[in-house]
Amino acid sequence: MGTMTVRAGTPLQAVQEAADKAGFLFALDLGARGSCTIGGVIATNAGGNRVIRYGMAREHILGLEVVLPDGQIVTSLNKLIKNNAGYDLKQLFIGSEGTLGVVTRAVLRLQPAPASTTAALVGCSGFDKVPAILAAARTQFGPSLSAFEAMWPDFYDFMVANIPASGSPLGGKHGLYLLVEASEFEAGREVERLENMLAALMQAGVIEDAVVARSNGESKTLWSIREGVSEYRRLLGKVVSFDIGLQTASIGQFVEEVRTALSQRWPGILSHFYGHIGDSNLHIVTNLPAADATAQKADITRLVYDRVRKAGGTVSAEHGIGTQKLPYLSYSRTSAEVALMALIKRALDPRNIMNTGKVLPLG
Amino acid sequence: MGTMTVRAGTPLQAVQEAADKAGFLFALDLGARGSCTIGGVIATNAGGNRVIRYGMAREHILGLEVVLPDGQIVTSLNKLIKNNAGYDLKQLFIGSEGTLGVVTRAVLRLQPAPASTTAALVGCSGFDKVPAILAAARTQFGPSLSAFEAMWPDFYDFMVANIPASGSPLGGKHGLYLLVEASEFEAGREVERLENMLAALMQAGVIEDAVVARSNGESKTLWSIREGVSEYRRLLGKVVSFDIGLQTASIGQFVEEVRTALSQRWPGILSHFYGHIGDSNLHIVTNLPAADATAQKADITRLVYDRVRKAGGTVSAEHGIGTQKLPYLSYSRTSAEVALMALIKRALDPRNIMNTGKVLPLG
Repeated sequence: MGTMTVRAGTPLQAVQEAADKAGFLFALDLGARGSCTIGGVIATNAGGNRVIRYGMAREHILGLEVVLPDGQIVTSLNKLIKNNAGYDLKQLFIGSEGTLGVVTRAVLRLQPAPASTTAALVGCSGFDKVPAILAAARTQFGPSLSAFEAMWPDFYDFMVANIPASGSPLGGKHGLYLLVEASEFEAGREVERLENMLAALMQAGVIEDAVVARSNGESKTLWSIREGVSEYRRLLGKVVSFDIGLQTASIGQFVEEVRTALSQRWPGILSHFYGHIGDSNLHIVTNLPAADATAQKADITRLVYDRVRKAGGTVSAEHGIGTQKLPYLSYSRTSAEVALMALIKRALDPRNIMNTGKVLPLG
Repeated sequence: MGTMTVRAGTPLQAVQEAADKAGFLFALDLGARGSCTIGGVIATNAGGNRVIRYGMAREHILGLEVVLPDGQIVTSLNKLIKNNAGYDLKQLFIGSEGTLGVVTRAVLRLQPAPASTTAALVGCSGFDKVPAILAAARTQFGPSLSAFEAMWPDFYDFMVANIPASGSPLGGKHGLYLLVEASEFEAGREVERLENMLAALMQAGVIEDAVVARSNGESKTLWSIREGVSEYRRLLGKVVSFDIGLQTASIGQFVEEVRTALSQRWPGILSHFYGHIGDSNLHIVTNLPAADATAQKADITRLVYDRVRKAGGTVSAEHGIGTQKLPYLSYSRTSAEVALMALIKRALDPRNIMNTGKVLPLG
């Protein structure tokens, strides 16, 4: 284990590269790595591609320096894995979106770097096959399973058609596409294990097709389809996007219901479903073809969140609440929970000057 | 991944057994598993034997139900890995030793169960060899390294002599003993990998001797020496024990300095050093042979904590503050940190009725 102390404004990618140079891995990774800062990652408790293996931002932070609303600086740059001397103050600031204080520096936890990492792209008939595939991957790899992403066909076909130089690495069409990644500490062993696992799943009729990357370049190509999401605004113009959490088993049914409801109300609407399915995290993107895009966005938002509430899910798995999801916080939190959040906010920021209007419905 | 919702009074061992029956692993483990409750584990953010692989109690908890000081019940029994809808309230109650509320129920995170787990006992000449051995274990096993414990000879010899049916599994005497455990998802593979790693370390002259357990029973025997700590009060009567955190690299020097200082001041005193060294966590136990045991305990405590403060360590890695370490909280926390803790305490418990007098120096 290593540690690294950085300023909050350091870009995530710079942190990853510095860790790499030091022979370690800073394991938090997400598509916006080039533009997001580590301070933003901490304030939002960001997730990303490797939560299944390494956890969210919270699990990568050992210490923080924070400026409180009254101007006091709390320097709590702990470097120890275990430190139970009093309350773990950093937990208050991680994920509270800047409403309790401003993070200025952080001590990051670095992981031993795996010897090699390989992705496989898998095609199967539909979501009903996911539990068996996920169970096989967990049993085969345990903690070496570093990503388990799903892409529904609308999403997959759109990206393959629009992201240059990709094209589908699989021959045929499938009901669902999975990106499975494993990281091993014996170089090359993850390739052999991925191939064994996929061959067994193929023979058992659970999956229809699969391709295992033979190089880092091939892995990047497989990931590029999933990471095409950064191109949405360029390709579709106005969109509405969601970041919801649901029990994994219920996600398949949820996707079908939402897609049907959307296309019944707005025939021809594009609805794309994908996500960190191994972490019960589903993303949805739709375009906004109606004349009144603002009204349509509000209607789609209610349509989706009403179903999230009914399913006992969360309106924010990893992107936080901000202002856009503020009206829906109560869909995923009880009034007692919100009251306790407000009590903490008032205690730390009685004048309500830190990121005012975000996260909490304060009177 | 699985989840399990339990009452706070459930013993840890009952949780482990229920998880096992369901085909999962509840990965938090410590010597007091038979007597401690899951509520206590949460209140103290307990650590234990497998922190190096699975983290402290905090990382095993998805949701909590808590009774606040004003009698309000906050039911926040989240089951999702990722949930960024507002502040992560459970973090306040984990590790705050009952001073902010009473945990009544918890949603636990279960891990996939590894196929097999094997321990090895290693003898080396002294602590200066630890960095190389730990680096080899991390590089060989990555996340499959599930424990890395150190025992100094005073501790080891005492346990081997006093814990029935153990006896030393190693032939000779060594300057330091290590218990290294690996868990693999391919049955038996951890044995092969442990043997390969230890053979290479032996050939390189880093370690002097090693034995790899060939069965669960043999693993238990190796662990029984380390777990002899539960017999301390029976074997030594009055003792004083410490749970400190230090940067791993500085632990060897720290042990020598403390041992020397203790034996210079109290010739013949027993001082035992052992701990979760892979997590930078050192335990110390000494007996109290002086006529005035209370005064001696206070003197030893100051002797140890003065050195912890100088080294920038923590007076509590995993056992919390309670009342005994309250006078030493400021050795490991700045006044700004303690002031922020007190602010939170006053906000949640203005009448100071929850575990009054613990953790914080409130006026």
